[in-house]
Amino acid sequence: MLIVPEREIAELMTREAAFDAVEKVFAAMAAGDAYNFPVVREAIGHEDALYGFKGGFDRAGLTLGLKAGGYWPNNLEKRGLINHQSTVFLFDPDTGKAIAMVGGNLLTALRTAAASSVSIRHLARKDAKVIGMVGAGHQAKFQLRAALEQRDFEKVIGWNRHPEMLKNLEDIAAEAGLPFEAVELDGMRQADVIVTITSSFAPILMKDHVSPGTHIACMGTDTKGKQEVDAQLLAGARVFTDEIAQSVTIGESQHAIAAGLIAETDIAQLGAVINGTDPGRSSDDQITLFDGTGVGLQDLAVAAAVVELAAEKGVATEVEL
Amino acid sequence: MLIVPEREIAELMTREAAFDAVEKVFAAMAAGDAYNFPVVREAIGHEDALYGFKGGFDRAGLTLGLKAGGYWPNNLEKRGLINHQSTVFLFDPDTGKAIAMVGGNLLTALRTAAASSVSIRHLARKDAKVIGMVGAGHQAKFQLRAALEQRDFEKVIGWNRHPEMLKNLEDIAAEAGLPFEAVELDGMRQADVIVTITSSFAPILMKDHVSPGTHIACMGTDTKGKQEVDAQLLAGARVFTDEIAQSVTIGESQHAIAAGLIAETDIAQLGAVINGTDPGRSSDDQITLFDGTGVGLQDLAVAAAVVELAAEKGVATEVEL
Repeated sequence: MLIVPEREIAELMTREAAFDAVEKVFAAMAAGDAYNFPVVREAIGHEDALYGFKGGFDRAGLTLGLKAGGYWPNNLEKRGLINHQSTVFLFDPDTGKAIAMVGGNLLTALRTAAASSVSIRHLARKDAKVIGMVGAGHQAKFQLRAALEQRDFEKVIGWNRHPEMLKNLEDIAAEAGLPFEAVELDGMRQADVIVTITSSFAPILMKDHVSPGTHIACMGTDTKGKQEVDAQLLAGARVFTDEIAQSVTIGESQHAIAAGLIAETDIAQLGAVINGTDPGRSSDDQITLFDGTGVGLQDLAVAAAVVELAAEKGVATEVEL
Repeated sequence: MLIVPEREIAELMTREAAFDAVEKVFAAMAAGDAYNFPVVREAIGHEDALYGFKGGFDRAGLTLGLKAGGYWPNNLEKRGLINHQSTVFLFDPDTGKAIAMVGGNLLTALRTAAASSVSIRHLARKDAKVIGMVGAGHQAKFQLRAALEQRDFEKVIGWNRHPEMLKNLEDIAAEAGLPFEAVELDGMRQADVIVTITSSFAPILMKDHVSPGTHIACMGTDTKGKQEVDAQLLAGARVFTDEIAQSVTIGESQHAIAAGLIAETDIAQLGAVINGTDPGRSSDDQITLFDGTGVGLQDLAVAAAVVELAAEKGVATEVEL
């Protein structure tokens, strides 16, 4: 089997490869060719850690396996390690044998960024000029960098609870040669695309902070109780997601569903838009909202892509198992 | 991280080490120090395969991880590979980092044999002389070999639907210098210990095939619908198991529970007997029955033991992840 260590991923994996892998697997999910297994997620009662497995099978791409790992909140302070730790394991769907093990930390950041990026490609207005970021932490940099490749953006605006973090966004804007402006939340009205990427448990972005025609990608909510945007925003938008079952239980939609503002049947799969079986955005005035909850198949897709790249370049370690 | 390939396991792992690991983790489960995660088990719709994950955490032994793999029914015929394929992945509970990957095929056979062996150690009469095997396939050899070490047995008797398979048992008996006798099912009345290890979906061993004072280890039933023994046998026995939640849903107890013959509260954890918090067998006439369903923690325990042995002997492959 092949091993691709964490330290090799940055050199090997491109945003383009992550985008293609995630777009393809969203399409396979909507076509019924790929599905995610039930998620295992356990508070193990040791080091306050959350640990679990996200698995799935993509019959179209023949990708089978899981991401295992979780969140160790004391890692950084106690040990100088990052708090999110994960590893992806791929299996041969023809035989059940383990075929690859891949460091999953950077891949998780890239696949999450790719997801909002795929939603922008398929749902944002073609003439979008201003991109707004709600949240400016480590992951926000990945989201912004990937998003900027999808339209001819002319300006980046950003808000963060701790304004000193906005430098993260300013740096990425500068990389792309774009001006950056720190705004209050109502300043988001000038944005054509908004990406939210926070760990909030109460709505930050409200309905009157968003102009008609905006595309919003909500990327921070992946747990029961988390919430980034006003449930009324979902009521007034066309809502898309990676996986409907997750969207209504642990995604941003959980709150609009619980309040009776939208029904499960109002939510469409982004993959259906990719496949052309859903028309997607229907007018320049419509607000589209992507509820990105994060699924195991995304992890498997980017891991399979990086294994292929590593094998091509001869940097994968081959071991007998 | 360390890799212990499948081909090294036979040289490294002893029945004693498997016994100790399984006994210890059953004890930890009963003491509330170790628990299994929800099992993921999926018919993936490809090669008729069943694939999934069995994970858990043992706070006492600090063992965290999962066994991934499953059953690929066409492997042997199509590819000359064994049909059950599994791999064990261990994680550092302090950091969430993957620390070991271990071939899981032989380990699964050894941990299953160790489980019935632990039940015999703690529940069979001390003066047991005759051991009876119901089932004589590949796994039966492992069960018998491990069981023979637990008492001064003087004779092995066996039954199998296809009698030509009984040679498997005769060979193991001969290894131990014991006579072997093929019997009809009612011949099991001479046994003091009976191990059932079949893939049956209807009861084989009936109440009147079993004498008072016998210990029965039912090791074949690990799925809804499977059944090896008469539900009336459980009604008349003291019932023990590895994990009660599995026993009542996918173990041998599922049928006695469904028929209202026993209640969930009638089933005790074998680990409680090991810990001395349950007296176990209460008389020489009592029938004791162990419902071995197989839990992820068993896999993790034997894998952790083999990693330690491999590290000591310098045969683990070390790779960077």
